[in-house]
Amino acid sequence: MRILGIDPGSRRLGYGVIEIDAKGIHYCGSGCLLPEGELLDRLRQIDEGMMQVLQQYQPNEAAIESIFVHRFAKSALVLGHARGVAMVAIARFGLSIEEYAPRLVKQAVVGKGAAAKEQVGHMVKHLLGLQGDLQEDAADALAVALSHARLRRSVA
Amino acid sequence: MRILGIDPGSRRLGYGVIEIDAKGIHYCGSGCLLPEGELLDRLRQIDEGMMQVLQQYQPNEAAIESIFVHRFAKSALVLGHARGVAMVAIARFGLSIEEYAPRLVKQAVVGKGAAAKEQVGHMVKHLLGLQGDLQEDAADALAVALSHARLRRSVA
Repeated sequence: MRILGIDPGSRRLGYGVIEIDAKGIHYCGSGCLLPEGELLDRLRQIDEGMMQVLQQYQPNEAAIESIFVHRFAKSALVLGHARGVAMVAIARFGLSIEEYAPRLVKQAVVGKGAAAKEQVGHMVKHLLGLQGDLQEDAADALAVALSHARLRRSVA
Repeated sequence: MRILGIDPGSRRLGYGVIEIDAKGIHYCGSGCLLPEGELLDRLRQIDEGMMQVLQQYQPNEAAIESIFVHRFAKSALVLGHARGVAMVAIARFGLSIEEYAPRLVKQAVVGKGAAAKEQVGHMVKHLLGLQGDLQEDAADALAVALSHARLRRSVA
């Protein structure tokens, strides 16, 4: 069973895919879309990039960070455009999407809701047995996927 | 030449299509998508509804209201999701999108930027020779299309 995690943004959109089998949780792939240009161009690039990621990894479930709105309304508006486009790409692929609050993701991956960014990246690498550098947006997206793996399991 | 106008929203998305030929400007069609359910469901319905509208009317150009962010960040975030999905549907159809501020739309259609909603609806019906009731979201979308028709003409 493959889980796609998304860390949404209009200029940086992180994605990460993990696989769960009888032996545990494994890393499949991750990366970051870096859309450029005007908003409409960026949205197109997110739409196309998401479709490529979905085709390449063929996930069975998807999870995305819910947004704690502490920003200015204008930032929230632009972020909303990007997040909406990513969500519809996933829905068009036939998947539903679970949302997880940033605090819950940190709690699930690091064990505390107020963990620093670096701790999240460190634990993601540890949990997935990754060596070397892991880009921050990709790490955040993998953390969302890991949270989904843990929380859906604890429910099952 | 056909112009599609959009008045975006996550629970009500107005659309209107007009045609320009040598004789003037004509009404092609208009309506309002009324997505229901959770946000992801509504976004899917907007995506599908927009594709139907584009297929049915085959517009050559598209225009959308730009958003004056006077709302709460949370409203802006949700509205952004819907607007982003509508914009990408249009981009995927191969069109670029012009944005017009609400004040500019009122200025172009009614002649003053502070016009009331009812005046906009009244002038849209007058300009397009429509009888009977015209739904408010559809009227706003047609006003955006009319603004594009006038402003692109005045430039040419």
